[in-house]
Amino acid sequence: MAELNTSGETDTLAASIMQQEEAAARGEDDSQPTYRIERPVYDEAFIRSQLLHRRENSTTLRLRLANRLRCSSQKAKAAVFSFLPILTWLPNYPVKQYLFSDVVSGLSTGVVQLPQGLAYAMLAAVPPVYGLYSSFYPVLLYTFFGTSRHISIGTFAVISLMIGAIVVREAPDSMFYVLSANGTNASAVLDVEARDARRVQVAVVLTTLVGIIQFSFGLLRFGFVAIYLTEPLVRGFTTAAAVHVVVSQLKYLLGVKTQRFSGPLSVIYSVKAVLWDVTSTNVSTVILGLSCIVFLYVIKDLNERFKKKLPIPIPGEIIVVIVSTGVSYGMSLSDVYKVDVVGKIPTGLLPPAAPEFSLLPNLVTDSFAIAIVGFSMGISLAKTFALKHGYSVDGNQELIALGLCNFISSFFQTFAITCSMSRSLVQESTGGKTQIAGLLASLMVLLVVVAIGFVFQPLPQTALAAIIMVNLLGMFKQFRDIPALWRTSKIELAIWLVAFVASVLLGLDYGLLVAIAFAILTVIYRTQSPKSGILGHVAGTGLYCDVDEYEEAAEYDGIKIFHSNSSIYFANSDLYVNTLKEKTGVDPEALQAARKTQKKWTEKANGDRNPSLNMCGKNKKQEVTHEVVSYDEQRNGQLGADRRASLSEEANFLEPPLTAVHSIILDWTPATFIDSVGAKAIKQVIKEYAALDVQVVLAGCSRSLISELDSLQFFTGVATPAMVFPTIHDAVLRCRRSNPRTPAAPTDGPLRQIHL
Amino acid sequence: MAELNTSGETDTLAASIMQQEEAAARGEDDSQPTYRIERPVYDEAFIRSQLLHRRENSTTLRLRLANRLRCSSQKAKAAVFSFLPILTWLPNYPVKQYLFSDVVSGLSTGVVQLPQGLAYAMLAAVPPVYGLYSSFYPVLLYTFFGTSRHISIGTFAVISLMIGAIVVREAPDSMFYVLSANGTNASAVLDVEARDARRVQVAVVLTTLVGIIQFSFGLLRFGFVAIYLTEPLVRGFTTAAAVHVVVSQLKYLLGVKTQRFSGPLSVIYSVKAVLWDVTSTNVSTVILGLSCIVFLYVIKDLNERFKKKLPIPIPGEIIVVIVSTGVSYGMSLSDVYKVDVVGKIPTGLLPPAAPEFSLLPNLVTDSFAIAIVGFSMGISLAKTFALKHGYSVDGNQELIALGLCNFISSFFQTFAITCSMSRSLVQESTGGKTQIAGLLASLMVLLVVVAIGFVFQPLPQTALAAIIMVNLLGMFKQFRDIPALWRTSKIELAIWLVAFVASVLLGLDYGLLVAIAFAILTVIYRTQSPKSGILGHVAGTGLYCDVDEYEEAAEYDGIKIFHSNSSIYFANSDLYVNTLKEKTGVDPEALQAARKTQKKWTEKANGDRNPSLNMCGKNKKQEVTHEVVSYDEQRNGQLGADRRASLSEEANFLEPPLTAVHSIILDWTPATFIDSVGAKAIKQVIKEYAALDVQVVLAGCSRSLISELDSLQFFTGVATPAMVFPTIHDAVLRCRRSNPRTPAAPTDGPLRQIHL
Repeated sequence: MAELNTSGETDTLAASIMQQEEAAARGEDDSQPTYRIERPVYDEAFIRSQLLHRRENSTTLRLRLANRLRCSSQKAKAAVFSFLPILTWLPNYPVKQYLFSDVVSGLSTGVVQLPQGLAYAMLAAVPPVYGLYSSFYPVLLYTFFGTSRHISIGTFAVISLMIGAIVVREAPDSMFYVLSANGTNASAVLDVEARDARRVQVAVVLTTLVGIIQFSFGLLRFGFVAIYLTEPLVRGFTTAAAVHVVVSQLKYLLGVKTQRFSGPLSVIYSVKAVLWDVTSTNVSTVILGLSCIVFLYVIKDLNERFKKKLPIPIPGEIIVVIVSTGVSYGMSLSDVYKVDVVGKIPTGLLPPAAPEFSLLPNLVTDSFAIAIVGFSMGISLAKTFALKHGYSVDGNQELIALGLCNFISSFFQTFAITCSMSRSLVQESTGGKTQIAGLLASLMVLLVVVAIGFVFQPLPQTALAAIIMVNLLGMFKQFRDIPALWRTSKIELAIWLVAFVASVLLGLDYGLLVAIAFAILTVIYRTQSPKSGILGHVAGTGLYCDVDEYEEAAEYDGIKIFHSNSSIYFANSDLYVNTLKEKTGVDPEALQAARKTQKKWTEKANGDRNPSLNMCGKNKKQEVTHEVVSYDEQRNGQLGADRRASLSEEANFLEPPLTAVHSIILDWTPATFIDSVGAKAIKQVIKEYAALDVQVVLAGCSRSLISELDSLQFFTGVATPAMVFPTIHDAVLRCRRSNPRTPAAPTDGPLRQIHL
Repeated sequence: MAELNTSGETDTLAASIMQQEEAAARGEDDSQPTYRIERPVYDEAFIRSQLLHRRENSTTLRLRLANRLRCSSQKAKAAVFSFLPILTWLPNYPVKQYLFSDVVSGLSTGVVQLPQGLAYAMLAAVPPVYGLYSSFYPVLLYTFFGTSRHISIGTFAVISLMIGAIVVREAPDSMFYVLSANGTNASAVLDVEARDARRVQVAVVLTTLVGIIQFSFGLLRFGFVAIYLTEPLVRGFTTAAAVHVVVSQLKYLLGVKTQRFSGPLSVIYSVKAVLWDVTSTNVSTVILGLSCIVFLYVIKDLNERFKKKLPIPIPGEIIVVIVSTGVSYGMSLSDVYKVDVVGKIPTGLLPPAAPEFSLLPNLVTDSFAIAIVGFSMGISLAKTFALKHGYSVDGNQELIALGLCNFISSFFQTFAITCSMSRSLVQESTGGKTQIAGLLASLMVLLVVVAIGFVFQPLPQTALAAIIMVNLLGMFKQFRDIPALWRTSKIELAIWLVAFVASVLLGLDYGLLVAIAFAILTVIYRTQSPKSGILGHVAGTGLYCDVDEYEEAAEYDGIKIFHSNSSIYFANSDLYVNTLKEKTGVDPEALQAARKTQKKWTEKANGDRNPSLNMCGKNKKQEVTHEVVSYDEQRNGQLGADRRASLSEEANFLEPPLTAVHSIILDWTPATFIDSVGAKAIKQVIKEYAALDVQVVLAGCSRSLISELDSLQFFTGVATPAMVFPTIHDAVLRCRRSNPRTPAAPTDGPLRQIHL
């Protein structure tokens, strides 16, 4: 034990106490330790002069800065290792132990990656092959830069949908109608190729921007921005995304040809448009789509139920893709039944090309939303797996990795990616051990792209819509959060609901913004509408609890301990002061006003002591007195009665209706900061009460709060360090000592200090 | 003394302590009271079961509601009195004592009211006579509804300027050019009459809306919205307003005819426009304006200097108005020297007319800004005077009063008003006692309007500009806030600067919005970037302070007390956990990872114990160990050395590099709330540390925080009420007792509980 003795008079006392404590704490093992403290009452003045001495800072700022900026080969090596995590794990890769599991997991994931890539490209409003590109390049790159061993990077429904909304806004159908003069009558025809080319351009530039933002955030160590996406917010937001996705896929499922909407209220417009055209539903499409949904749902259920018995989950999605492609090809669904199919899938990869940066200015705000959502999805999943498998992921490196994946890939015509939850679960549950699994999945996609991509040309769009919808069913389960949150936290329920409603109605981008703003406001609300009350001592314990809540808490006569569960700053200082006056039952303004009227009245006329009280002055005074009493009564049942009696008596004898309270202790234990407005308000309170001969003292200030008070020059004039106590109990002991006033003699000197 | 005894085993102990305390506190008067507590160590489980019993709520919600909604004649009377405060003070008006002072004050105020009304109408971009109307109706009405006895209601520079900006935006010059064909060449001529009529309409509707908003806010008891306008914000904002005003008056002072700008960057455009046309300056105008400024400034200075000797301040402004009108009339300045004059002032009042409500939709957001600024100016001044003179003002009634003044007056063609600081100071310093002074001032304005308004027609505009500018010189003194705030609070300085810069550049409306948003964000910042540290015991006192800051604070071996100056919620829980790991020097992830690698390594190969350490696994482990040690070292100089030695030793012998810390105490004294994200994070921390055989306990939770934890279902699984202690000292005593581990035997059972 390296106990330092305090200087000054406490020396010997402290030493002896410490010995007792030691004895008590180390003595017999089976008895309860005893809490025993005996010391003089401390106030801040004493603490400053005698008890605490600031430690001299041994390292100067310059030294620390130099230390931090020093360059060494070790540091450089660490930087390289942290930037390219593959260098740390690959040389050490235990081939025998891990490779087989990684291959199995990689193939299983690739089998899911493929249909999801095709399907989510539809969400992103670009031709399906770009979904395949997006399932290859970024996944490959993540192997080098990523720190998570289990997440599956690639296309993700929510992000794809957000991209889709922006793409459709920037390149709407209406921009691409061209006049085609076939035969005699000229009609406007949608130039699908020009539109899709434009849409790909928009999606690609957006992805470049997302990559740049994520990469810079990572370099700037801004990983913390994800913290604003609190869990209820993310769950409300993703549920809303699921609603958007289902609505956007309705038309493919039904084979109805409607426009795609974006922006606020797009959900409503989309549903309306589909319902309007529901008569043009293509029956074959619906039948095919519904059977896919049923099949996928059953497979999903089976996978869930026989999780432990199946070595790898049944790849329902690839089965659906293969079978429906086969059926479509065999029965010529596209030609005979007019079922919409995927259409042309070029074979091979595209050469790299610079994104069309001229589109950039319109996309800046959107890309921030996508970058943040993408990252926060990734990091939350990565953290979950890291925790489960006992390794650590680096949030900032994940941002850098995602940023590089998006940025570099975008030169190869991909759209923005992050990790997908469903796919990551496949990768992890099939035994994936390292990023090698992801690598293999990407290579499998590559194989399809360069060799057999054209095979999927007859794949009906309705099958892809079915895949998307079934994948998102899980998100609808999040509605169960509502009753759960109702029980645990109303504020978080509000965040969930605001995130959901705003995101459904305003679109995902504005919805996210509104939700974040709302989440921030709830914090303000929490600091601003504190719980407050009057504390009483639980006899013999040194603990103070709310007298309204606990039976054992009892007040000391003449001392009110006011507790408010917050810091004191501009937005709540007024409320703090008002609540203080109300809860303690001592309102200086009312008392002063009453006293003034009274004084005037006694000065003015001793003759007309008319007990019928119809004069205004008297009337007012009486009202005020009543008010004071009723506050008291409300607050403090048993004491209120006596005091009311004494007050009424006083009022009758025209004594000043002063309060029996001689000391008010402000419990600042929960206060973490104070600003100049708060400090001024408190000083004002001290002054006002001093005029009524009520002393106000502060208890339980933390050292950092006291430093703030110092720098705000609080301890000048009426406020002194001697009125600040380290604990409530110190303050109570001092107040009981220094105030000989008792309720029996409430007028003992109350008029001494009046100088307004 | 009404001490309630605690139940259970503490009974007798508590009673005896209480007696001792009593004795100590009441004993000899000149000795210091003693802080003495001796009791068993409490934890939350004990507190719940034995110590504290929830009080049954005697009044049900329904009863309380019924009580509140009960109607009585007394309540009705109180409501009427509070709505029409004149009923409380007028019947009791002490004619002999007050009337003379009120008359003097009223006339002095009226003499200022008049020129300010004319001048501020120019700011509001309406003809001067409307400024006179605005100086009459609302002032009259305030006499009935207002609770402040000293503020002078009427035109106010900042509000007038805000109105002006909106009016110019809604009715710009460009809307009113008409083709006039005089002679042969047709040219576009500004139709000043149509423009001014339109501008008056806009100002009037705006005023109606402001009135409605203020009135509704008052009824809804929304007076608190003014709290967001913290003092640094208001001072930065008003300084910016002064800049706007001076810039807007430059053209009148110089006699340059330029367009009036509104919206963002209007200040820059205005200055540019004036500078562009500076060659067309009218020399007579400039000379007149500058002499007015000099004269007013001297008078202001004299008034300030001989405050006590002068019975009433010299009415510089009315002298300027009268003299310059006389000069202008005598020398025909308007005709001969082309000096711009006020022009037509109709005699008499206008009949009431309904505002042009069709203009309303564009003005809603603007009117919120004006309503809030107007109210907050009024209430802050009213509170200052109330405090000085010992009466109370009712914020919500003030809102209602302002609202009614604006709303009713707007039917008589006024623009929005509030109280003006300079005028209120005149009213108060000349001895005004009640609202009667304001009433007389308004009647004086009425007299001018109905009788001699036309007299002011030759008044040069430059004289009015001079009045406005000199009035606002005081606001520029607010620049002195900057060094003062730099010393006291950087955050508040930031608020001041943001309010100023945003309001200057973006205009007063957007500027206010930005400033409020920024002020709110500073609160978030304060709760989110807390100060944190490790606490140590100041021997023998039961007080715990930061060991880095205070010499006397010393840590107990094996116990780390982590203190973070904030609540724990979504936006800082990650930071909290990271700081905890860093400051305590115990990072479970790193330790686990190190242990894993180690384990694998020892399992794998006993043969190749190669001390050159070029294998990756070893390398990594070594790094991690180093990191842990370096944290420790940084944090805890004297103990670090021993521990580092022991750790290196351990590392050398390939023992798990576990920490010597057996208990971590989280000091939650400053925590006021927690949300589900925070609770989950803490539970996770408890789990992670439990796996390393480090116990985590909570200390200093307030009762309300514990209720929140309960409703978040925190006390399930790993977390139990037995790990929550009412004070840090309780927790320390328990931790020292329950952990026989000493630094001499750090490996005593650390592997017992590992089940990841």
